[in-house]
Amino acid sequence: MGNNHLIWKEEGSRELFKCRIFSIRESSCRSPDNELRPYTVIDAADWAIIIPVVETERGREFVMVRQWRHGSKELSLEFPGGVFEPGEDAEAAAGRELLEETAYKAGKIQKIGEFSPNPAIMSNRVHFFLAEDLQDTGAQDLDEDEYIKVERVSAAEVLQGMGRPPYVHALMGSALALYLQKNAGNLN
Amino acid sequence: MGNNHLIWKEEGSRELFKCRIFSIRESSCRSPDNELRPYTVIDAADWAIIIPVVETERGREFVMVRQWRHGSKELSLEFPGGVFEPGEDAEAAAGRELLEETAYKAGKIQKIGEFSPNPAIMSNRVHFFLAEDLQDTGAQDLDEDEYIKVERVSAAEVLQGMGRPPYVHALMGSALALYLQKNAGNLN
Repeated sequence: MGNNHLIWKEEGSRELFKCRIFSIRESSCRSPDNELRPYTVIDAADWAIIIPVVETERGREFVMVRQWRHGSKELSLEFPGGVFEPGEDAEAAAGRELLEETAYKAGKIQKIGEFSPNPAIMSNRVHFFLAEDLQDTGAQDLDEDEYIKVERVSAAEVLQGMGRPPYVHALMGSALALYLQKNAGNLN
Repeated sequence: MGNNHLIWKEEGSRELFKCRIFSIRESSCRSPDNELRPYTVIDAADWAIIIPVVETERGREFVMVRQWRHGSKELSLEFPGGVFEPGEDAEAAAGRELLEETAYKAGKIQKIGEFSPNPAIMSNRVHFFLAEDLQDTGAQDLDEDEYIKVERVSAAEVLQGMGRPPYVHALMGSALALYLQKNAGNLN
């Protein structure tokens, strides 16, 4: 059985709200049974999330950033990442965000997957990268309102901590799943 | 070194937009350096995502749902899940969504973690569950606008597929990371 009976068609769209980081529109969609229904969609720029890997004598570590998050009002320990600048390509955005937030420059940066952050209500994409051959330039370049503490955490500790504070950001779980996919479920 | 130098304080909030599934407000936040700045926050009900596991002669399988997503305008193969009803507790929401979407009733349902779907811009939570001892009641109970195809997929195939179509929903990657955490990175 094919999947044609599941497919909808967007027939129109109108903006309802706009702010600096996203806009909202009503999308009119035709159902498989030919009914027209309204859905609310959030449009935003694409995001990059980077898993920076360092091999040490103690085992594999990730470079992570601890920062306040205004949506959930808590500190969150995350892989570095951020929003694409207009016209910027995904790999460039990843390298730039890594360098700005952590001061680490990646000798090798490789895309490992792409998701919709929430395909039910968002139209943008989040792109995931593995960063290796890291060199610490010692020079973070933060926005005026960014307060970021860089930490090195063992890969095993990150896996064990996911889904509880300070590992509260769901997209970091998505990143870790892609990392485990590339490493056959193995963190060592 | 503690983390007090990273902590902000919300001092006020005003609604900017409201629709059926979320509302948007401007949150005024005091920085660690005592500056007041505005941030945009999306408020929504909490969500549940359920990983339904079936042991078969072929190995471990997940019960998944294939459906159209209006944000990304594509078919997405996902673990079942949905939005909490007002006043509903997390486990009840998980059991209800599983039954409605897949017709499977869980003999055992267990919370395995919780994330913010995006703590930078969202205030709600997404709760993850493992569902076992499944019984197929044969009776999906879909909303009028839900078109859902139930599929059984091997656990290994889901891990391999994440981050590429039809595994496009980032929160399903988050779910899989929690599943791997509980199974020591092992899918067998």
